[in-house]
Amino acid sequence: MGRRSFNRRLFAGGAVAATGLTSMSAAFPPESAADEADAVKKAVAAKEDRHLKLYVEDLPDGQMGYGLEKGKATIPGPLIEMVEGDTLHIEVENTSKVAASLHPHGVDYEITSDGTRHNKSHVEPGETRTYTWRTHAPGKRKDGTWREGSAGYWNYHDHVVGTDHGTGGLTKGLYGPLVVRRDGDPLPDKSFTIVFNDMTINNLDAGPDFEVTVEDRVELIVITHGELYHTFHIHGHRWADNRTGILTGPDDPTPVIDNKITGPADSFGLQIIAGEGVGAGAWMYHCHVQSHSDMGMAGFLLVAKPDGTVPGHGDHGGHGAKSGKAGESGKSGASEKSAQGGAESGEKAASGHEGHH
Amino acid sequence: MGRRSFNRRLFAGGAVAATGLTSMSAAFPPESAADEADAVKKAVAAKEDRHLKLYVEDLPDGQMGYGLEKGKATIPGPLIEMVEGDTLHIEVENTSKVAASLHPHGVDYEITSDGTRHNKSHVEPGETRTYTWRTHAPGKRKDGTWREGSAGYWNYHDHVVGTDHGTGGLTKGLYGPLVVRRDGDPLPDKSFTIVFNDMTINNLDAGPDFEVTVEDRVELIVITHGELYHTFHIHGHRWADNRTGILTGPDDPTPVIDNKITGPADSFGLQIIAGEGVGAGAWMYHCHVQSHSDMGMAGFLLVAKPDGTVPGHGDHGGHGAKSGKAGESGKSGASEKSAQGGAESGEKAASGHEGHH
Amino acid sequence: MGRRSFNRRLFAGGAVAATGLTSMSAAFPPESAADEADAVKKAVAAKEDRHLKLYVEDLPDGQMGYGLEKGKATIPGPLIEMVEGDTLHIEVENTSKVAASLHPHGVDYEITSDGTRHNKSHVEPGETRTYTWRTHAPGKRKDGTWREGSAGYWNYHDHVVGTDHGTGGLTKGLYGPLVVRRDGDPLPDKSFTIVFNDMTINNLDAGPDFEVTVEDRVELIVITHGELYHTFHIHGHRWADNRTGILTGPDDPTPVIDNKITGPADSFGLQIIAGEGVGAGAWMYHCHVQSHSDMGMAGFLLVAKPDGTVPGHGDHGGHGAKSGKAGESGKSGASEKSAQGGAESGEKAASGHEGHH
Repeated sequence: MGRRSFNRRLFAGGAVAATGLTSMSAAFPPESAADEADAVKKAVAAKEDRHLKLYVEDLPDGQMGYGLEKGKATIPGPLIEMVEGDTLHIEVENTSKVAASLHPHGVDYEITSDGTRHNKSHVEPGETRTYTWRTHAPGKRKDGTWREGSAGYWNYHDHVVGTDHGTGGLTKGLYGPLVVRRDGDPLPDKSFTIVFNDMTINNLDAGPDFEVTVEDRVELIVITHGELYHTFHIHGHRWADNRTGILTGPDDPTPVIDNKITGPADSFGLQIIAGEGVGAGAWMYHCHVQSHSDMGMAGFLLVAKPDGTVPGHGDHGGHGAKSGKAGESGKSGASEKSAQGGAESGEKAASGHEGHH
Repeated sequence: MGRRSFNRRLFAGGAVAATGLTSMSAAFPPESAADEADAVKKAVAAKEDRHLKLYVEDLPDGQMGYGLEKGKATIPGPLIEMVEGDTLHIEVENTSKVAASLHPHGVDYEITSDGTRHNKSHVEPGETRTYTWRTHAPGKRKDGTWREGSAGYWNYHDHVVGTDHGTGGLTKGLYGPLVVRRDGDPLPDKSFTIVFNDMTINNLDAGPDFEVTVEDRVELIVITHGELYHTFHIHGHRWADNRTGILTGPDDPTPVIDNKITGPADSFGLQIIAGEGVGAGAWMYHCHVQSHSDMGMAGFLLVAKPDGTVPGHGDHGGHGAKSGKAGESGKSGASEKSAQGGAESGEKAASGHEGHH
Repeated sequence: MGRRSFNRRLFAGGAVAATGLTSMSAAFPPESAADEADAVKKAVAAKEDRHLKLYVEDLPDGQMGYGLEKGKATIPGPLIEMVEGDTLHIEVENTSKVAASLHPHGVDYEITSDGTRHNKSHVEPGETRTYTWRTHAPGKRKDGTWREGSAGYWNYHDHVVGTDHGTGGLTKGLYGPLVVRRDGDPLPDKSFTIVFNDMTINNLDAGPDFEVTVEDRVELIVITHGELYHTFHIHGHRWADNRTGILTGPDDPTPVIDNKITGPADSFGLQIIAGEGVGAGAWMYHCHVQSHSDMGMAGFLLVAKPDGTVPGHGDHGGHGAKSGKAGESGKSGASEKSAQGGAESGEKAASGHEGHH
């Protein structure tokens, strides 16, 4: 009994849209610091401004995507990571046939980087525009109150395709994850993005599977877009409903949850240790609105034993040729299926970390 | 003007499903510790594994329920309480005519206790299967990060009746409350469960009433299932939106609320002191989505004076013959109506505590 | 490209309902304390009970409103502010043709001030009834647990017009903001109320604009009513999802967000420093459910430079004749449009503060 036992609603174009998308290298993974062998890797801010090129592209079947290289746009777009204090200049080239934009949540930007039509910060077809995002750590104001920091699980998306709120762009796939970490925040071994976009996950007709190994520190970035509310649930794992998804200590009053209601443009993240206290297995994640999961909004976190097998998931033969192992952060465990749209952030984060530690 | 002034939508079967359900003894109430006369009773972990028998049963009108004794299934199922560190082995006997399962939120379990069809952890009709749930306290990992504890207001439900996500089982009533407490957490005098299951509360056409007395420490466990989102509101009382529903101290930044949005499989809990600062009365609780409350998703927390009367609720004659008093934790104040489906967790928790302190 | 670029759905009566509504003086602004020049002004509890007269009134086009003066009801009703420890007696005169009531969230009140029909705490047409609201600071109970305080971003509304849950009253406009502050909580320079009431904001067909100046401490009170869930989003600003919307310090685990799901009767608040880190501009706020924003649930926080101009918003000529400047807290920057229903709480809070510091 595997994934086929789900009654998945087919969305015309969903699977096709992902055709031809391949893995990508990391956008802006944070540098990391580790004090000792066992210690978790931690985020470190960059010392100077970073620059990024981002393409808005047409995809087959009328879908659209953001990509780091021409012809390689994905849905969702690439994971963009920053650390509080970082500044990022993103040159957006619009290769599509319609005006589009880049609107971020969470970061600091002047009104000229808003990505909305009313203040003319969009990009006409064939044109280029640079958006600048800044971030900051928490700090005390002159008036004695505390200013919040930029750290959070955010997202970016188009704000002009279809309507002045980007409704068409979001439907077609112009969205992606944006994570701002605080200096010292734990870095995941693998990071995956799950976007509930109306009745799809990542514009796919069925949720992608994510392949990891027991003891991997796995980050899930959950974003919602469109019209509908959803509840995100994962089996066998839970997280603290706070800024990082990780408890700050035993006195942290944050609720620990494994199910969370979320609406359009909400985004949150969590870090779990794969199989911690529960072992390897095909751990389902899904929207818990019953008709949504029944119609395909579900997938698996495939947690393999160190030997690569996933108990009770034998008819799938465990992880495939691309399977990675815990600690080998350079190798993403993305299955062929999930590489087509769902697991790219895992690949990016992983390959990106390679170059930094 | 009493409950009859509500325009309640009648659901075929709702009232009937509850017919014949009676009070039950506690499933697994935590032991308690009290240092002095006034001090709140506190949760204490068990010293050894616990064992529980749970029946999946057909109920009249096509509904189904979980029960601790054969022929005594209820909607919701019995309150199951654990304390971090506890292990619980639940032998599920499926007396119904369809395959069913037991899927928990929040606790630790191996994939063989997942309760899903894809890993064959369900129970065929007439068969028995033992599910094992473990729990743990927060602790520091070798990598320096904190692992969250199991404590929380969780829930359990079927995951296979009707669809591979248990949509049919949830509709029919196969769900119940699961509370994991931390060592030292305050124990309530009475505990009630409110399940927003689509347009019903506890599969009833109208919300049950809960009878308590001023100064009772009352726990409400609020669970949502089905398709719809809801907002839970209670009059005259409020709670901290944190792990326990109780402020950890005056500097706890948690919002204090009396209304909370919730979606399918979300669950949360709160402890209030009945009538604290507001006195006795018929305090309404309801879903605050207007059409939902108008159609019957409302009931009363009937807070009686020590003499048993409920001001302004005279046409109901105050609490009935079964009314309890604060401090007499062995006696539940569940009204006849609420005993039929809604207040059973109150009875269980209360009677259970009797045996342990 | 200004506001006209939005495709706003016209609601019959929405614009008309606001006709003739003018600014009002403050209901019950907290007193304030400031230790030094730069320090934020802080809330201080009143020393004795306060008294307020509130009118329930019919408005054009079948709408209704609460007002502090006869013939001056508004939608939303006036901002009512309290500080923990305050007691408020509100004499409600019902000048409308139907029975109505006043039901508050969050504060302490006896069942006779519940504002519901079942306990006869409503007001018949032409009659008057006094509701008493009390508040309290957090405190330790005799049993050793902490009692939460009353501080929070609450709301009040009718509970009897149309149905026993006030569905008709809410639709027509009988709702308003209620803020309880803790002694020492930062006071805003300007306060605005945004009520997502089904497909309207403040019963208007398009969201009001709010005019402020860079460095103003701006409070937004966000309330939802009706049938629908929404997500509140504001561009270029973010807040801590805790009790005050302001971080308590760098170790506060609260998520920082700029988008929040909310359902009927939910209310929350935030304080932002206008343009902090991002500068002046026409910063959009909107419901992020795509069809909702597309149909008009959007407006602007117009953050002007000290010279009164709003970059990129030139076709609107910057702030109008009524524009205020940071620090001149007595002058509200409400635009003519926003004064008609949306920004009245800003005016009230501002004018009220004039008399207290």
